[in-house]
Amino acid sequence: MKTPKNSATAAPFAYEGLDRVIHERARLSILTSLMTHPHGLSFLELKQMCALTDGNLARHLQVLEEDGMVKLGKEEISAGGRVQTTARITPAGRKRFLEYLTTLEQVVRDAAAAVETPDEDLLQRKLAPQGA
Amino acid sequence: MKTPKNSATAAPFAYEGLDRVIHERARLSILTSLMTHPHGLSFLELKQMCALTDGNLARHLQVLEEDGMVKLGKEEISAGGRVQTTARITPAGRKRFLEYLTTLEQVVRDAAAAVETPDEDLLQRKLAPQGA
Repeated sequence: MKTPKNSATAAPFAYEGLDRVIHERARLSILTSLMTHPHGLSFLELKQMCALTDGNLARHLQVLEEDGMVKLGKEEISAGGRVQTTARITPAGRKRFLEYLTTLEQVVRDAAAAVETPDEDLLQRKLAPQGA
Repeated sequence: MKTPKNSATAAPFAYEGLDRVIHERARLSILTSLMTHPHGLSFLELKQMCALTDGNLARHLQVLEEDGMVKLGKEEISAGGRVQTTARITPAGRKRFLEYLTTLEQVVRDAAAAVETPDEDLLQRKLAPQGA
């Protein structure tokens, strides 16, 4: 990995903590669903909660499993032996997600601060002394 | 565009508002930098703030310009006529970024709620009546 000047001072908006595996929108959906349901979710439940197609969900679950963030399993759902795929977040996945969340919160804080106090405001306040 | 069941109730974790143009990490860096500097930034300033290479920054700025979110310009920086590229966020870009931010804040709230009140806690509270 390259080592750019990425301290908060040198590169305050680099957001190195935005883990690419987690940041992809479909995977962010899947992982947030699984964070809020730590006992796991079935393929069908995930598909509905995240509004993903079968193909997309299967592909992203595979990426997350290969990366150790999600554990996939099979669960029998009828006496006839029909099974469904289930997914749950791993302890390592949970840890990485929390680290990611810290950076995401920083992005929101930075952006919200920009909305509340844009440069123009600061500039105008400096140009217009109080009471003027 | 496909129309999945994506109301908050049917697909609470779909996060359709996570605009793909904005959500990409490098572009999210660039746009947050430009939101906090509404008068614009030079190529060199952006490169340092976002810890991006020349090639990556140029490529992502082009995507953002083609999408109408960023306006690029040229600024003379010496008597000899040397110019530098500058970038600023457009009003349309600012509007889209604020819409994106609303969804991003929802992701953070959902995930933070999951951290504070996981299913296990809820389950244990139900299983262990107060005073037991």
